[in-house]
Amino acid sequence: MAGDTVVGVIIDCHGHYTTAPAQLGEYRDRQRAAVEADPQHVGDKGVVAISDDEIRGSLENAQVRLQQERGIDLTLFSPRASWMGHHLGNAHTSRFWTEHCNELIRRVCDLYPERFAPVCQLPQSPGTPIASSVAELRRCVEEMGFVGCNLNPDPSGGAWDGPPLPDRYWYPLYEALVELDVPAMIHVSASCNPNFHTTTSHYLGADTTAFTQLLTSTLFADFPGLRLVIPHGGGAVPYHWGRFRGIAQDLGLPPLDEAVLGNVWFDTCVYHQAGIDLLVRVVPTENILFASEMLGAVRGVDPETGHAFDDTRCYLDAAGLTDVERQQIYAGNARRVFPRLAA
Amino acid sequence: MAGDTVVGVIIDCHGHYTTAPAQLGEYRDRQRAAVEADPQHVGDKGVVAISDDEIRGSLENAQVRLQQERGIDLTLFSPRASWMGHHLGNAHTSRFWTEHCNELIRRVCDLYPERFAPVCQLPQSPGTPIASSVAELRRCVEEMGFVGCNLNPDPSGGAWDGPPLPDRYWYPLYEALVELDVPAMIHVSASCNPNFHTTTSHYLGADTTAFTQLLTSTLFADFPGLRLVIPHGGGAVPYHWGRFRGIAQDLGLPPLDEAVLGNVWFDTCVYHQAGIDLLVRVVPTENILFASEMLGAVRGVDPETGHAFDDTRCYLDAAGLTDVERQQIYAGNARRVFPRLAA
Repeated sequence: MAGDTVVGVIIDCHGHYTTAPAQLGEYRDRQRAAVEADPQHVGDKGVVAISDDEIRGSLENAQVRLQQERGIDLTLFSPRASWMGHHLGNAHTSRFWTEHCNELIRRVCDLYPERFAPVCQLPQSPGTPIASSVAELRRCVEEMGFVGCNLNPDPSGGAWDGPPLPDRYWYPLYEALVELDVPAMIHVSASCNPNFHTTTSHYLGADTTAFTQLLTSTLFADFPGLRLVIPHGGGAVPYHWGRFRGIAQDLGLPPLDEAVLGNVWFDTCVYHQAGIDLLVRVVPTENILFASEMLGAVRGVDPETGHAFDDTRCYLDAAGLTDVERQQIYAGNARRVFPRLAA
Repeated sequence: MAGDTVVGVIIDCHGHYTTAPAQLGEYRDRQRAAVEADPQHVGDKGVVAISDDEIRGSLENAQVRLQQERGIDLTLFSPRASWMGHHLGNAHTSRFWTEHCNELIRRVCDLYPERFAPVCQLPQSPGTPIASSVAELRRCVEEMGFVGCNLNPDPSGGAWDGPPLPDRYWYPLYEALVELDVPAMIHVSASCNPNFHTTTSHYLGADTTAFTQLLTSTLFADFPGLRLVIPHGGGAVPYHWGRFRGIAQDLGLPPLDEAVLGNVWFDTCVYHQAGIDLLVRVVPTENILFASEMLGAVRGVDPETGHAFDDTRCYLDAAGLTDVERQQIYAGNARRVFPRLAA
C-alpha cells in the first residue's frame, strides 16, 4: 500500500513555535519576575526585539528542514503550548504575552507564507472573564488573518478548578468561533501540579477530559456550527472507543457519531504504528486530521524503526489507507475544518 | 485461532461489589449526613445488617451468572471503587466505612470460595497519615486472607492536590505491600470535580497519571519487589506507547521494559476489539492481566457485536494470541502477581 502511495498536499494541523529566539523567553522571564514581586503588576506591552533573520534562523534547521524531509507542505503554526502558561501572572500579563506570541507567529507566516498558516493562543487567565480572549481572537482572525486558535480547557495549569467546557462561561468565545468560522484546538499548557507531567499525563488527560465534557453535554445543540479539534490522537478516547460508546448508550445519549463527530476532530499525534492503526480503524476518516506536533513533545529517533517518533507520516503511509482516505486525512479534512486556509 | 482455543482457568483480576444490598449504601448515607452536620464527627463503627441470603441474592443473577456465562472461574473482588469516596467525611468515617466494605467482601468470598478472592479498599483520607491504610491492609491480609488492595492515587476525588505516588508519604504502605507480598491496583474513586466524569476521564486520566508518575521516578529502585496493577487497560498509555517510549528516551530513562515493566501490569478492561488488539500488540504478554470490571462502568450490549461491552473475553479470544499467551493473560500472570491466591 505504502509502495504505490498517491499523496497530494500534506497539511500538518498541529505545530508549535517551540524554537523561538531567546528574546521571547527573556521577555516572559521579566514579566514573571515583575508579577512575582507584585501579583497585581500591569506594566506595559513592551517590545520583543527579534529580527527577521533570527526568525529564519530559528526555523530553517528545525521545522522547515523537517517539513522538507517529511514532505509536509503546510503547518498550522501556533505559539508554544507549554509556554502559554495561563496560570502564570494575571490577566494583564497574559494579554501582553499572548499578543507578542501571536504577533511573532504572524511574522513567521509572513516570512514563509507557503509553509505556515497562523493559529493563535488566547489570553486566558483563571477567574477572569473570557471577553479578553474573544477580543484577541477577533484581532487575530479579522486583522491578522489567523485561521484558528488554541483553547485551554484548564487555564489553572493542572488544578482543574475552572468551569468545564460546556459551561456558559465559554459561550461568548464559542459564538465568536462560529461567527468567524474558525475552529479551536483544545490544548492545555504546562502543568504546575506535581501530579501531572506536562506532555504525557496532563496533555493526554486533558484531551480525554475535553472529549468527555463535550460528549456528556448539549453544547453542540447550542452551537451546531462549532468545530473543535482534540489533539494527541484524542488522548485515551480512541483506545477506549468501546467504553465511550457503551457509556453513551448507558446514559441514553445518541451514538458517538451523532453526539459529537459532527463537531469534533482528532489529530494524528500518536507516535507509533499500532496507535495510528487503531486510530484509523475506529475513528471515521472524515474526523481525522494529519498532525505531527513537531518540534514538540518527543524529539528523538525510535531505535526500533529508525524514524523520528514524531514523523507521523511514516505511520499513516503504512496504515493501509486508500488513496482517498489518505488525502482526506492529509489535507481534505483540514480544508473543511479550517476554511480560512483558502484565503 | 479462536476456533481451536485452548483455555484453562480464567481469573478476572478486577471485579467490584457494585451490587451490594441497600443496607450498605444506607449506612454510608447516615455517615455522610453525620459528617455534614459535624465535619469532626467520629461516631462508632456500628452495624451493617445484611444476611447471607441477601448477599447471595445480590450476586446470583449478576456477577455469578455472568461468570458462568462467560466461563470466568475466579474474580478478584473488591468493594465498589466509585463508593470508596476517600474525599468524603474524615479519617474516622473513612476507617469505619472501609472496614465494613472489606468485611462484606470477606463474607462474599466465604460464601463463594471458588468464585471470588478478596481484594480490599484502604481507609485513605486526604491530608491524614497513611498509617491507617497500612493497618487495614495488614488486618485484611494477615487476619482475613485478602490477596491484594486498591490504592487511590488521588483521595481528593479529582482535586489532585495530594502527594504523587513516588512521594515518601506512601512509603510505609509500599513497605507493607512488599513485606506481605501483595500487589496494589491503582484505582481512583468517584470524582467530585465537575471537570471529570468518574468512569471515563477520571478513571482513564488517573491510570495515565499513575503510570507517568511511576515512569519518571525512582520508586522501583527503592522497592524492586513492589507490584502495581494499572486498570482500564492502562488508561491512555498503550495507545501512546510511542510517546512514552520517546519521552523516556528524551529524559535519559531506561527503556519502558526496564524502567517499569518489572513492577507494573495492565488489566484488559478495554471494551472493544481494536483496543484489545492494540494492548496485546504493544504491551508484553507477561504484563497483561485478564479483567472485565463487571459489573462496572459499562453495562450494555454492543449493538455492533451482540456481546456485552464488558465481555472482554470475546475480544481476547479473537485477538490472535497463541494458547500459551492466552493462558498467561487469563491466569498465569495473575498467579505471579497475586501469589496469595495459591493459599
